[in-house]
Amino acid sequence: MYPDSIKSLIESFKFLPGIGEKTAERLAFSVLDLEEEQAEFFAESINDVKKSIHKCAICNTLTENEKCFVCMDESRDSKLLCVVEDTKNVFLFEKLGMFHGKYHVLEGLISPLDGINPEDIGLDKLIDRITNEQFKEIIFAFKPSIEGETTSLYIKRILDGLDVKTTRLASGVPIGADMEYVDSLTLERALNDRKEIE
Amino acid sequence: MYPDSIKSLIESFKFLPGIGEKTAERLAFSVLDLEEEQAEFFAESINDVKKSIHKCAICNTLTENEKCFVCMDESRDSKLLCVVEDTKNVFLFEKLGMFHGKYHVLEGLISPLDGINPEDIGLDKLIDRITNEQFKEIIFAFKPSIEGETTSLYIKRILDGLDVKTTRLASGVPIGADMEYVDSLTLERALNDRKEIE
Repeated sequence: MYPDSIKSLIESFKFLPGIGEKTAERLAFSVLDLEEEQAEFFAESINDVKKSIHKCAICNTLTENEKCFVCMDESRDSKLLCVVEDTKNVFLFEKLGMFHGKYHVLEGLISPLDGINPEDIGLDKLIDRITNEQFKEIIFAFKPSIEGETTSLYIKRILDGLDVKTTRLASGVPIGADMEYVDSLTLERALNDRKEIE
Repeated sequence: MYPDSIKSLIESFKFLPGIGEKTAERLAFSVLDLEEEQAEFFAESINDVKKSIHKCAICNTLTENEKCFVCMDESRDSKLLCVVEDTKNVFLFEKLGMFHGKYHVLEGLISPLDGINPEDIGLDKLIDRITNEQFKEIIFAFKPSIEGETTSLYIKRILDGLDVKTTRLASGVPIGADMEYVDSLTLERALNDRKEIE
């Protein structure tokens, strides 16, 4: 029913996670409404991004250069390492602007049920790095989940014997949340990790 | 903070209506996760669609040919014309599969408040067509709104004297809707347009 080129564009949008038939149709038609130059820029951006983006040689953050902007920045605290599960999280922390250490991006979290074992998430590169650079503290900034805990504990055990502090992000009740909507696991964690008011 | 090519892709997604910063970022990162060929297909589809899609010479429906698939189809009822405000609505009705007449796509609806006057929505082409082809019935399939009503009435007045029936889509309570969530204008229309149970 749709002309072929519209059909192809709808299919393309459906490659993206979270985009179903209806949204893909809406987006395809809105591409038709774009200015000629905008559409060209869009198509070019897709091609460019696939060609020029790759992982930082040191920390795996996506970059167009050999090393990412954090690894290139000599002013950052090279004693503090934040380990994340996905390159997106590096940008999340950078937007926050309050972390001034280095990062390391894993290739996911250990999840035996999904068939993701320790050897699948690029731990060698992280361990090498921790062994060679003298970090004082490693922050595991994984999402609070079985997979996050498993991965933190696994790495911590490998690091046993090295003189390095390991920490994880605090979990608890999110700021602004209504108590009755907080799930029981979060509430349990918030209670266990309660802090003294000073 | 983001590498330039990711930045460009985020900007590109933001060209599309309804896509804000966060969604654009999420989509841009998911393009990075696509297979090489999928990304190429995506970029190509955007270029193709802009190059090959234009309006049907007769009815304005978007097509890759001189005439659209409906105007080319000799089996359709050429006495019945459905006038819509947007090419998307043609595909909407075609998906439904129960209308077998012809279409005509306007360039929007009359809306003096937005500065859209009768001469801005391509009425000449429609009037020419109605004058030359002998339609028995013209269905105005506009959204129920001041603009829709104004446009229907305006065209109906021009057609005065021609032997053609003009109709509009029924409005009323949507199937499955809870009565308490139906707005008062819709309810008023549903009451006025009530139908005898046979």
